[in-house]
Amino acid sequence: MMQPALQLQHEGEAFYFIADYHSLTSMTDPGELRNHVQDLALDFLACGLDPSKAVFFRQSDVPEVTELAWILSCVTPMGLLERCHSYKDKIAQGAAPSHGLFAYPVLMAADILIYDSDVVPVGKDQKQHLEVTRDIAIKMNERYGEGTLKLPEARIREETAVVPGTDGQKMSKSYGNTIPIFDGEKTLRKKIMALVTDSTPVEDPKPVEGSTLLDLYRLVAGAAEIESMEQDFRAGGVGYGDFKKRLFEAVWAFFSEAREKRAGLEADPGFVDEVLRDGAEKARVEAAPVLQRVLAAVGLR
Amino acid sequence: MMQPALQLQHEGEAFYFIADYHSLTSMTDPGELRNHVQDLALDFLACGLDPSKAVFFRQSDVPEVTELAWILSCVTPMGLLERCHSYKDKIAQGAAPSHGLFAYPVLMAADILIYDSDVVPVGKDQKQHLEVTRDIAIKMNERYGEGTLKLPEARIREETAVVPGTDGQKMSKSYGNTIPIFDGEKTLRKKIMALVTDSTPVEDPKPVEGSTLLDLYRLVAGAAEIESMEQDFRAGGVGYGDFKKRLFEAVWAFFSEAREKRAGLEADPGFVDEVLRDGAEKARVEAAPVLQRVLAAVGLR
Repeated sequence: MMQPALQLQHEGEAFYFIADYHSLTSMTDPGELRNHVQDLALDFLACGLDPSKAVFFRQSDVPEVTELAWILSCVTPMGLLERCHSYKDKIAQGAAPSHGLFAYPVLMAADILIYDSDVVPVGKDQKQHLEVTRDIAIKMNERYGEGTLKLPEARIREETAVVPGTDGQKMSKSYGNTIPIFDGEKTLRKKIMALVTDSTPVEDPKPVEGSTLLDLYRLVAGAAEIESMEQDFRAGGVGYGDFKKRLFEAVWAFFSEAREKRAGLEADPGFVDEVLRDGAEKARVEAAPVLQRVLAAVGLR
Repeated sequence: MMQPALQLQHEGEAFYFIADYHSLTSMTDPGELRNHVQDLALDFLACGLDPSKAVFFRQSDVPEVTELAWILSCVTPMGLLERCHSYKDKIAQGAAPSHGLFAYPVLMAADILIYDSDVVPVGKDQKQHLEVTRDIAIKMNERYGEGTLKLPEARIREETAVVPGTDGQKMSKSYGNTIPIFDGEKTLRKKIMALVTDSTPVEDPKPVEGSTLLDLYRLVAGAAEIESMEQDFRAGGVGYGDFKKRLFEAVWAFFSEAREKRAGLEADPGFVDEVLRDGAEKARVEAAPVLQRVLAAVGLR
């Protein structure tokens, strides 16, 4: 997720925010939410978000977003929100049907529109979110005049390799199958050693196609290492335990720079706070005139 | 409506605001909304709202309100909003079902809770609104701890005399039967002369009970004048046209002070703006710490 997202900071004026207001729809424990926000901030900075290039901030530090969200609500037909998959999906998965969950797409639209965003990178499964945002912006422009809001374009992310989780399914927090790259050596090793494999005996050749272990290895190892691991798979005589150790070593090495950077940042929480505060200031400089333009257009100024 | 509302400014620290964000759910024309806000501000000040005693401001000048509204949304069950009469009633009356209309009670709850309000004056037919507000505050306190939000108490307004409109129904903007007390002599006279009466001939006695004309007269005339008008009703020989002229004179006199004050304020729009700006500043001084308290409680700070 991070890699293509962070690539964009080199292509233009990029805005990244921690959607803590949205997180509130699923996190009811204050401590959990606080840790989540702190972790996300550290993760982004450790993985290469450059606050001197990109604007990085917390959603809840930009009050203009909730102000615009209310205004957007007044042109948003109930039917548009009722048709959104994400609400229905979350309810089906057992989430309590709160108004925040229902209103989620309106706040998301405000998040995008308040910065006059040109381009929004989305995965293929998130296309509907941006379509809802565009629908709302179009309604605003129809009612209050062209140019009231800027219509953002979707940039559909090229599907990069699907990252499998420890059970072979797509890696996802909600499946509990992630590999905790920043949780320390012991935890990482344990998780990788518990990777689900087939039951091919040590001495037999292992299937190269559809191997979660190999798929993960390909994401973090060099070309020569991958080549060598594939050969050992085909040859037989090496057990999955050994392959898992090699995978662990490769993951550990691949994230060493980010891990060190994260450790440094963790030791300096004041710096992270400052980055986010600075980012919020920059974000508000962009958001404030857009809000004023909209307030004037709808007759509130 | 104004009389009991304005009485409260002498009983404690009173907050009055022009709910322009809520107006946006029904007013789609920017000019109409602007005029509406300006008219309301002039009406309140002309009728005796004292900005040195009460805090008087525009809802949209207090961004803390929309921020709190989002947080409240996250604990508000959809079922609570779906049960609200006002949304269903407005849709039944032909309003387009927008998300703003649906979310109306959440913003209203934020309007009340952001000031740690002790008491909210409501009419009998508005009791549900405050109950929704209390329900939401209780949910917040259950989840995040007692004292996160202050539970406001309803003060049910004593039913004062029902004010009939020009057609004898309850006076209401939505019935188009109001008497435009600030629209100038000619308009006022025309509206009052068009009052609906029965068809009792000039020479006959007129019914004193159930007379809209007399009911309105009782609200604006002195005791001796009312007595005299009732006698003339009973005696016969005076037509409704004459009674209407007397009603016009009484209304005109009753509102003369407010009318003059309003004319003075209209000539000084800078003053009204300043009052509202000052009021917003005072309101934000109360709102900001409440928002910070809530942000901390939910884990966003």
